[in-house]
Amino acid sequence: MIDTLINRIKHTHAPVVCGLDPVLGSIPAHIRADAYGAYGESLAGAAEAIWQFNKAIIDHIYDLIPAIKPQIAMYEQYGIEGLIAFQKTCAYGKEKGLLIIGDIKRGDIGSTAAAYAAAHLGQVQVGDKVFSPFAADFITVNPYLGSDSMEPFITAAKAANKGLFVLVKTSNPGSGEFQDRLLMPADAVGPARPLYELVAERVAAWGADFVAPASGYSHVGAVVGATYPEQGERLRTLMPQTFFLVPGYGAQGGRAADVAHLFDEDGLGALISSSRGITYAYQDKNYTRYGSAAFADAARAALLDMIEDIAGVL
Amino acid sequence: MIDTLINRIKHTHAPVVCGLDPVLGSIPAHIRADAYGAYGESLAGAAEAIWQFNKAIIDHIYDLIPAIKPQIAMYEQYGIEGLIAFQKTCAYGKEKGLLIIGDIKRGDIGSTAAAYAAAHLGQVQVGDKVFSPFAADFITVNPYLGSDSMEPFITAAKAANKGLFVLVKTSNPGSGEFQDRLLMPADAVGPARPLYELVAERVAAWGADFVAPASGYSHVGAVVGATYPEQGERLRTLMPQTFFLVPGYGAQGGRAADVAHLFDEDGLGALISSSRGITYAYQDKNYTRYGSAAFADAARAALLDMIEDIAGVL
Repeated sequence: MIDTLINRIKHTHAPVVCGLDPVLGSIPAHIRADAYGAYGESLAGAAEAIWQFNKAIIDHIYDLIPAIKPQIAMYEQYGIEGLIAFQKTCAYGKEKGLLIIGDIKRGDIGSTAAAYAAAHLGQVQVGDKVFSPFAADFITVNPYLGSDSMEPFITAAKAANKGLFVLVKTSNPGSGEFQDRLLMPADAVGPARPLYELVAERVAAWGADFVAPASGYSHVGAVVGATYPEQGERLRTLMPQTFFLVPGYGAQGGRAADVAHLFDEDGLGALISSSRGITYAYQDKNYTRYGSAAFADAARAALLDMIEDIAGVL
Repeated sequence: MIDTLINRIKHTHAPVVCGLDPVLGSIPAHIRADAYGAYGESLAGAAEAIWQFNKAIIDHIYDLIPAIKPQIAMYEQYGIEGLIAFQKTCAYGKEKGLLIIGDIKRGDIGSTAAAYAAAHLGQVQVGDKVFSPFAADFITVNPYLGSDSMEPFITAAKAANKGLFVLVKTSNPGSGEFQDRLLMPADAVGPARPLYELVAERVAAWGADFVAPASGYSHVGAVVGATYPEQGERLRTLMPQTFFLVPGYGAQGGRAADVAHLFDEDGLGALISSSRGITYAYQDKNYTRYGSAAFADAARAALLDMIEDIAGVL
């Protein structure tokens, strides 16, 4: 799957993924009004507004980028109906030729991790039948519980030829509180290194025997925030076979110059994510000329600008 | 909410929570056959089997313990239908007077964490209406992303008078890989301490201004595995106002003696969890006499034995 992602990046010339993170209050009023008219001010109404919004966005951007990244939390907040909208969004993106990165940040022990892996990457068996409930191509996972909590995800990804992005260094202001803590060296005399470097070392090891032959990149990738460019540059050298999923560009403050060193010399190795900055561009002063009726055209324009911005540093 | 939990522990004399973690293959064949007969070998059939199984278990144990702890992963693997069974299980448990600990281990940044918090503890607004999609009383959360990723959960818990259990030291064999790493002291000369102690310090701080007046315990609790008794004992002294949710008893190897020091002198301060060891007791050699038709009686017997076992060390 990582080679499929890379081929699509090459084809689109866009190492960019659009996050689809529904914020009901940012969805144009006419879409909400139609949805509430049909389903009431209800979770079903919210889910319909989200789905109609996402569908229009996908219709206007699917030819430009390799993948979309729906953030499941933003759907889960609308309960079962929200999660149905998540499923429909993933299925529609796939129908339009996009890869799906499920931003789910799950992590748990043993059989529980296996259940999440089955839900989002693999299959579950019911009697003699098998089902793939959420069927993403990649998912994000949280490593705090250790290697044995990651193993079921890696096993499921291998079985389904899919991929993972493990949280290593996240983009939020407080990510350093635990992730940047310096660890005592095992021999008590070597240099101290931060926790995220240990996690990076493990991520590289987990992925070492799961490398795609064509590209040389592993199916086990890493989440590395755009907001910490120096740490990102260091991680690039520590994890040469690891593809990076990079949140934090745009609305969170990361600029193209900040992500330049997350790429390899071949201009691959990183996928830069933007969510609000694309999907709600019609609310941004640079794109208000589109108006809320043409919100999806505004999103396309913002995405084209982002692709150009990233290309400028490669 | 923490005082409600404590009152129910006092009332039942059982600092015990039963995990409801559906494993389809362990649900008695007659329940599965009925469910598949009605809904086919489908996700809906799996969800029906899970729901009927859980309902019978709850009916047979609700008077013995203060709370149940459904593990959402085991429902999520059956997709939307599985999550409907999760919701029905939570609602039915609440109807029978049980508190609900949603074992969801979510963790994410800013607005995303707020969305998870709204989904599971709080409310979401749609137009002029508000909804509480999953409506647990407590949830488990993952702290790897730092204080700013926990803040939305704490805010939502405060607003709804609900509670959290933050992963500090988990019960799995590999939990030490990151959690036990010794950190360099800030002044480079003080004693090194493991990461989980730093997380514990933060959990205590996050909860310091959210303490229930009656009991003196905070609404921000900690997950501390039964399988590391010495570390647990140390955490008890480090976090005197923090209630512990303790997985790892029973099927994972933790014994009553291992959890004794996780309690305070008043016999409170910890809630010991068991899942498979209770719900699938009919498959255990100690309880096979019940047979699969009386699986729920076997669960009740196993739970009574567990309560007695824990009481013996308090």
